[in-house]
Amino acid sequence: MENLDPFLEIAHKLADAARPIIRQYYRTPVAIDVKADASPVTIADREVETAMRAILTTEFPDHGILGEEHGRHNIHADYVWVLDPIDGTKSFIAGKPSFASLIALCYKGAPVLGIIDQAITDERWVGVMGRPTTMNGEEISARDCETLDTATFFTTAPELFRSAQSIKAYQAIADKCRQPMYGVDAYAYGLVALGFADTVVECGLQAYDFCALVPVVEGAGGVMTDWHGKPLTIHSTDEVIASGDARCHQDVLTTIRAAIA
Amino acid sequence: MENLDPFLEIAHKLADAARPIIRQYYRTPVAIDVKADASPVTIADREVETAMRAILTTEFPDHGILGEEHGRHNIHADYVWVLDPIDGTKSFIAGKPSFASLIALCYKGAPVLGIIDQAITDERWVGVMGRPTTMNGEEISARDCETLDTATFFTTAPELFRSAQSIKAYQAIADKCRQPMYGVDAYAYGLVALGFADTVVECGLQAYDFCALVPVVEGAGGVMTDWHGKPLTIHSTDEVIASGDARCHQDVLTTIRAAIA
Repeated sequence: MENLDPFLEIAHKLADAARPIIRQYYRTPVAIDVKADASPVTIADREVETAMRAILTTEFPDHGILGEEHGRHNIHADYVWVLDPIDGTKSFIAGKPSFASLIALCYKGAPVLGIIDQAITDERWVGVMGRPTTMNGEEISARDCETLDTATFFTTAPELFRSAQSIKAYQAIADKCRQPMYGVDAYAYGLVALGFADTVVECGLQAYDFCALVPVVEGAGGVMTDWHGKPLTIHSTDEVIASGDARCHQDVLTTIRAAIA
Repeated sequence: MENLDPFLEIAHKLADAARPIIRQYYRTPVAIDVKADASPVTIADREVETAMRAILTTEFPDHGILGEEHGRHNIHADYVWVLDPIDGTKSFIAGKPSFASLIALCYKGAPVLGIIDQAITDERWVGVMGRPTTMNGEEISARDCETLDTATFFTTAPELFRSAQSIKAYQAIADKCRQPMYGVDAYAYGLVALGFADTVVECGLQAYDFCALVPVVEGAGGVMTDWHGKPLTIHSTDEVIASGDARCHQDVLTTIRAAIA
């Protein structure tokens, strides 16, 4: 793998390009389209991804791109950028500043660089494999939390859990944790990296929802896997756990396994 | 009732006093105490309310005060200030900027002035009986939403609903609405006043949780009542609905009545 610094510089440019577009449409009455998977999309999502792809096409014409809104390009390349222009489009539409732009770079499928950018609160988390995670330029770290029963647990909404198995898993975690919290999309993973939340458990996610989160959480000392404890790659789908402390992560995995047994 | 302008000026001073204290403790590892009702409280909650009460005692020695953290003083006065220094203490503790300082003035029990202040995102909603609601000085208004099935519905967490009856009511609303959203405490009522959400349904609330919200929501053209459609006063407790459109509000009331029949 090459030195990641030139890629990081461009990742910042993508996040910088997103901000004025998001601010322009935030809390304005944008038209909402409904996609094939029933999720909403706005002109802001589309324009942000278009702006990001234009930069990547110029800077790294050989790299692949996997974006939520504008599809796949050359995704068998060694380097693939994975983009969610607005993660939490429902929050964006509701005028609630907990959505984020997610920018990841995967090398041979593994996320090696990730940015979580909140354009309204002016917060940018940056994770690079092998380096400490930063938020607005300052190093941050996750906190100790040995067991789920002392953990602050985040998930966006109970409605995420649709299958009978996943509902059981969610209920077991919500019942066992110290404090369930809701509603903040990718921002919750940023709170884990900052040491103010302990675990996030979600399902129904796609690569563009989580690839950027992995280097951010892991560079802060945390762990991210699927519900079976396997590392997340560009090929993973659906089930995600992020924890600030590996011991709490194990407890979450054990709790899920027991709940769906 | 006297002219409210002098009271409004002091209400702004209370919100101004809260901001530096909240910013000082935000995302720092504050100690968390657990109150008799099992809710958490921090030094930030207590110091903010102390600062607010000091101003009120000087400015309006004859007025009553009902505060979440430091109790009741002269609450049979015609004018009573109702204070929640940090509504959404759990969000404050998790470093999530969706908590708010709530400041209300009640006249003979009815909320006539309310402020929702978010110290981190720098957002202040101001409602005064008979006047248009403002956010950061600009007039705002709720949006049309005729029926619950087209509504964005907010509630802080499904765990708010504890009794068998209230769980049925929550489930009926979550099932019927267009989009359920979670996690933002008093901020959700601000989104209704801004015209970006349609209804909020909660229970387990106290006067300091909702008195400030009533003039904000109603001054934006919305409606706030209890679950039986009765106006909220300083003596109300527990069940609250806020809607941007009176027709949606009726639909929510009907849905609750049918669910718990």
